[in-house]
Amino acid sequence: MALLETVRDPARLRELTAGELRDLAGEIRAFLIERVSATGGHLGPNLGVVELTIALHTVFESPRDRLLWDTGHQSYVHKILTGRQAGFDRLRKSDGVSGYPSREESEHDLVENSHASTALSYADGLARADAHLGRRDRATVAIIGDGAMTGGMAWEALNNIAGGPERPLVIVLNDNQRSYAPTVGGLAEHLADLRAGRGPGVFEQLGLGYLGPVDGHDISAVQDSLRHAVALGGPVVVHVITAKGKGYRHTETNDLDLGHAVKPMDPHTGQALKASPPSFTSVFGEKLVELAEQRDDLVAITAAMTEPTGLLPLQGRFPHRVIDVGIAEQHAVTMAAGLSMGGVHPVVAIYSTFVNRALDQLLMDVALHRRPVTFVLDRSGVTGDDGPSHNGMWDLSVLSVVPGLRIAAPRDGTRLAELLAEAVEWDEGPTLLRFPKGPAGEDLPATATFNGIDVLRRSGRLDVLIIAVGALAGLALTVADGVRAQGIGVTVVDPRWVTPVNPALADLARRHQLAITVEDNSRTGGVGSAIAQALRDADVHTPLREFGIPRRFLSHGSRAEVLAACGLTAQNITRVVVELLTGLDSAPASADIDDPGTWPVRSGEEH
Amino acid sequence: MALLETVRDPARLRELTAGELRDLAGEIRAFLIERVSATGGHLGPNLGVVELTIALHTVFESPRDRLLWDTGHQSYVHKILTGRQAGFDRLRKSDGVSGYPSREESEHDLVENSHASTALSYADGLARADAHLGRRDRATVAIIGDGAMTGGMAWEALNNIAGGPERPLVIVLNDNQRSYAPTVGGLAEHLADLRAGRGPGVFEQLGLGYLGPVDGHDISAVQDSLRHAVALGGPVVVHVITAKGKGYRHTETNDLDLGHAVKPMDPHTGQALKASPPSFTSVFGEKLVELAEQRDDLVAITAAMTEPTGLLPLQGRFPHRVIDVGIAEQHAVTMAAGLSMGGVHPVVAIYSTFVNRALDQLLMDVALHRRPVTFVLDRSGVTGDDGPSHNGMWDLSVLSVVPGLRIAAPRDGTRLAELLAEAVEWDEGPTLLRFPKGPAGEDLPATATFNGIDVLRRSGRLDVLIIAVGALAGLALTVADGVRAQGIGVTVVDPRWVTPVNPALADLARRHQLAITVEDNSRTGGVGSAIAQALRDADVHTPLREFGIPRRFLSHGSRAEVLAACGLTAQNITRVVVELLTGLDSAPASADIDDPGTWPVRSGEEH
Repeated sequence: MALLETVRDPARLRELTAGELRDLAGEIRAFLIERVSATGGHLGPNLGVVELTIALHTVFESPRDRLLWDTGHQSYVHKILTGRQAGFDRLRKSDGVSGYPSREESEHDLVENSHASTALSYADGLARADAHLGRRDRATVAIIGDGAMTGGMAWEALNNIAGGPERPLVIVLNDNQRSYAPTVGGLAEHLADLRAGRGPGVFEQLGLGYLGPVDGHDISAVQDSLRHAVALGGPVVVHVITAKGKGYRHTETNDLDLGHAVKPMDPHTGQALKASPPSFTSVFGEKLVELAEQRDDLVAITAAMTEPTGLLPLQGRFPHRVIDVGIAEQHAVTMAAGLSMGGVHPVVAIYSTFVNRALDQLLMDVALHRRPVTFVLDRSGVTGDDGPSHNGMWDLSVLSVVPGLRIAAPRDGTRLAELLAEAVEWDEGPTLLRFPKGPAGEDLPATATFNGIDVLRRSGRLDVLIIAVGALAGLALTVADGVRAQGIGVTVVDPRWVTPVNPALADLARRHQLAITVEDNSRTGGVGSAIAQALRDADVHTPLREFGIPRRFLSHGSRAEVLAACGLTAQNITRVVVELLTGLDSAPASADIDDPGTWPVRSGEEH
Repeated sequence: MALLETVRDPARLRELTAGELRDLAGEIRAFLIERVSATGGHLGPNLGVVELTIALHTVFESPRDRLLWDTGHQSYVHKILTGRQAGFDRLRKSDGVSGYPSREESEHDLVENSHASTALSYADGLARADAHLGRRDRATVAIIGDGAMTGGMAWEALNNIAGGPERPLVIVLNDNQRSYAPTVGGLAEHLADLRAGRGPGVFEQLGLGYLGPVDGHDISAVQDSLRHAVALGGPVVVHVITAKGKGYRHTETNDLDLGHAVKPMDPHTGQALKASPPSFTSVFGEKLVELAEQRDDLVAITAAMTEPTGLLPLQGRFPHRVIDVGIAEQHAVTMAAGLSMGGVHPVVAIYSTFVNRALDQLLMDVALHRRPVTFVLDRSGVTGDDGPSHNGMWDLSVLSVVPGLRIAAPRDGTRLAELLAEAVEWDEGPTLLRFPKGPAGEDLPATATFNGIDVLRRSGRLDVLIIAVGALAGLALTVADGVRAQGIGVTVVDPRWVTPVNPALADLARRHQLAITVEDNSRTGGVGSAIAQALRDADVHTPLREFGIPRRFLSHGSRAEVLAACGLTAQNITRVVVELLTGLDSAPASADIDDPGTWPVRSGEEH
C-alpha cells in the first residue's frame, strides 16, 4: 500500500504517472477486499469502479468540480481517495465512515441520498444554476449505472437535459449490465447493441452527445473520453463498460450478485463468517412458495431486488411467476394493478424506503380501483447501518391515509406467515405487511385474543395497556417486566392489523389507567397517533402516550444504537410509564383483571 | 345529430360506412362544442381525438378489448360513443357524467385515475395477466399523449414492454405536441424528427414495433394502422398525429392552451360567461413576480402547467426564470434540490394531488439535504368537479412526516402573499404553502396574535377553541357565530404555519373546555391529529375533536357538495360542538376572557 498511503487528497493523484495510477488501482482493490470482507459492505460495485474513480479525480478537480454518485454505494473508492481511508476499519458503524456519500464526512460529497436514478436530476439543477448565475468555472459530472437508467426519473432528467439549451454536463454511464441483478428491459438490450458498436444510440436520438463504449478498467482511455466530453461543451454521455466485482474471484464468479453487498466474510473463500438465523425475509420467501403452490394466480413483483426481498425460492420453484421490472417502483405498482384487473393476484415485494417512490400509484392505481394487491415491505422501521435514506420509518404514517388499505405488522415469523396468508385471501382491496431487516427472532405466542387482537401478557391490575406494533413486541414485553417489577399491573397486546385501527383497542384502553403504543415508525401520524384519534372518536379518555421515532433523519449505526437514540429502550419507556402513572391525579380505582364482566376476553380463542 | 342519436353502443359504429363515420365525427365535434361550452370542461383534448376514438371503437370491441385512456380527460368522445350522451348536460356535476373515465358509469371504463403516464403500466399488467392465464382472445390498447411520455413511469413501462417476451399490446401515441402546454424536451424534438420521416425511432431502438406517422384525423388511415399493429402481434407503437382543439376556431388559434380546460363560455366567441374573482392562484402569481423583482436568485419550476399554477405573470416578466420540465414531478423536485445546491432558490409550483409523485424526492433529495426549496401546492383540499384523483386531501398528512419541512396554509390572499414572502426567506430547509382551487375570498384579518398564531375571534368565556386550517377559516367563523348564538364562548385562531405544530396552541387549548380543529385534509394524520399529539406531549388534557375528510375517496361534485358530504358544514360542526360541550361532565369553571392574567395575548401586535 506504498502509494495509497501517500494519497490524502485527490490532488495527489494528479502528480502520479500512468504506471503509478495503475499500481494504485491494484492497491485500492486489495484494500477494499481486505477491509470490506472484515466489516461487510458493498464490495462488488466498488471493485468495478476503481479505475473509473481514479480517472475522474485526475481529470476533474473535486470539490470545485461536482462529482455526483448515483445511488452512492459505489463511492468507497472516492472516499479512499478523499482522505477517508482510516474510517474503513469501522465501515457503516456509528464511529466509522458511512456506506454512502455523507456531507458530514467530506466536502467532496454533495449528495447522500442512496435511492437510485437521482443523479441526473441533481446535475441538471446544478448546471441550470450555473447558467442562471453565469458561472463557467466548474464542471458537473454525474456517474450513473445502467441499472439506475431503468428508473423513470432518470428518463425525465435525460429528456430535460437533452431538450434544454446546451449546458456543459458530463454523464458517465457506468455500464456493468447490472442493477443488483442483471439489468432488465429494452434499454439493457439496446446498451448491448451499443457495446457491440451496432446502430445509432438512443442518447444521440434524443439530442445528447455520446462517446464510447470505453473500457472502464483502462484509466488512460477513460481519461481521454472525459477530456473529450468536456471539450464538446454540451451534455455528453460517456459510455463506460465495467465489470462489477472486478479483480475478486469470488465475486466475479458468483452469478447471483457479484458481491453486491457482502456480510463479514473470509476474504480467501468468500464464505460468510457466521450463519444467519432465519430472517423475516426468509420466512416470507418460504411462505410465499407454499401459497403459490396452492394458488396458480399468485405472482410476485420486484424492482430489481429478487434476492434481497426474499423472492429467490419462488423464482426457483416457478421461474415465470417472479417479475423483475428493474429499478422502477412506479411501474411495479401500477403494473400490479393491471395484473389484478386481468385476473392475477400480485405480491409486490419492496423495501419500505422505496415504496415512497410509488405513493401516487398505490393511491390512485391500486387503492382507488380497489385492487387486491398484496404489498410486502421489507426493511421497515430502523435499518441502521445503511444510514438515513434506508430506514423505513414513515410507511405506517404515510400509507395510513390510503383509503381501503389494510396494513399488518407481524411481530414474529409465525405471525408473518399467518398474516401473509390472510393478506392474499383478502379480495376487497389492497393489503400490506411490513417488517424489519434481520432475524425473525423467537416466537411470541398469544395467551388469548380479543376481537382479532393478540393478548401477549396480562398481569395484575389494569393499570397500563401496552399496544405493541410488529417487531417491537419483544421490547414491549421487556417493558412489561420492568413495570411489573414496580408493582404496576400491565397488559400487552399486538393488534396484528394496525390500519385501520381495530375499534376493540378503544374497549381495552377504556379499562386501563394509561395506554402506551410502541412502534418503530415516525411518531408523526403513526399507529399511536391513529389509535389516539380512534379513542377520542369513541369518547375514551384514557391518557395515551406514543413511543416511536421523532421527526428527524437518523444517522447510521446499528439498529439497537439507532433505536436507543430514539428512546426506544425498555429502560426509557419503563421510566416514562412509571412517571405518567404517578402523575395521574385522582385516578379512579381500576377494574380487577379477574372480573370477567369487565373485559370480555375469550382465552384460548383461535388465533 | 341524426347519426349520433342512433349510437347507443360502439357496436353501432361497425354498421356505418366510411362516409357515415366521417359525418358522425362532425356531429360529435358539434356536440362537444355545444355541451362543453355550456358546462365547462376539457374541450381541446377531446376535439383532437374524435376520429381516433371512432377508429378505435370500430377496430376493437370494447369492453372485451381493453381501451386504456392515459390521463383520461380525452375520454369524452369515448363516453359519447358508449351510451353516455345524456349525461353531458351535467358534465362534471354530481348528477352528470364525470370528467374522466368512471367504472361506476360504464363497463367500457377500466381506469379512472386522471394522473398522467400510467396507461402503459396498466397495459403491461393486463398483457402479462393474459399471458399468465393463457388467454389470447382479447386485445389491450393504451392511448397515451406525447406529453405523458415525458413522465418517468411511461419510460419504466416502455422499458419493460420492450424487454419482455412478445406480448400483443397496441400503444397509440397520440402526438399533438402538447401537454397542457407544448411538450418539452429531447423526446419532443425526436418526435418532430419522426413526424418528418427522419431517422429510425427511439421506440424501434428499444425493441418495439413502430407504425407511423399516421394522420389522426383520417379515420380510415388510423383503422388501417391499428389493424396492422394487431397483425404484427407483439408490442407496437402506432404514432398518430392529431391537432388539439381540432375544428374549433377559438381553440385552434389560441396559442395558450388550445382549449385544454374551458370554463363555461359563449361558443361563438370563446369568451368566458363570467369574470373570475381573484383566486389564490392569481394572488400567488402576482406576489411571485414582486419577489422575483427583488431577488435575482428566485426561479420557478412547473411540471407542464405554467398557466394553471399561476406562473404566466412570472414567465411574462422573466421568461428564463420559469422552468417547465414536462410531466415530470420527480425530476422537478430533485432538479430543484440541485438548483438550490448551485445557489438558486427554486419555487416549485404544483398541484397538491401531483406532489405524491415526488414524495421520495421531497424527503431524500430536498429535506435530507436541508435545501431551502419553496413548494407551492395549488388545488389542495377538496377540488370537487375533477373527481377523486384530483383532490389534494392528503398533503398535510403525508408531508407532515418530512423532517424539517415547514408547512403553511394561508386562509386568504393577504396571508398567502405574506407567507410566500416568509417562505422564500427561510434558508434552513424546505417550506411549503398549500391552498385550494378557487377565489381567495374576502380577507379575514386577525384581531390579535399570540406567538405567531392569528386570533380571528374572541367572544365570551373560554369554552371552545376553534383551530382553523387555511381556507376553512371562513367556515370556522361561521361555526363561531352558531355556537355563540347558543351562549357558548368561542375563540377562533389560525396558526398560519401548521407543521410543525406551534407549541403555543397547547397553551391556548389548556385554557379552554374543548378544542376543535377544522381542515380540508384527511383526518388521518392531519393537522388536528398532530395538534392532539402535541397536547398529549405537553400534558394538556383538553378534549379535542378533529373535523376533516374521512378515510375514503370522494366522488365528483362541487366543492361545497363534497365538503358537505364530509360533514364540513357550519351546521354540522356547530351541532357536534354543542353536543361535546354538553357531554363534558363536571367541567371546571372556565377562566374569564377579560382576565388578562389567564391569556397573554398581545392585542394589536404586528402580524
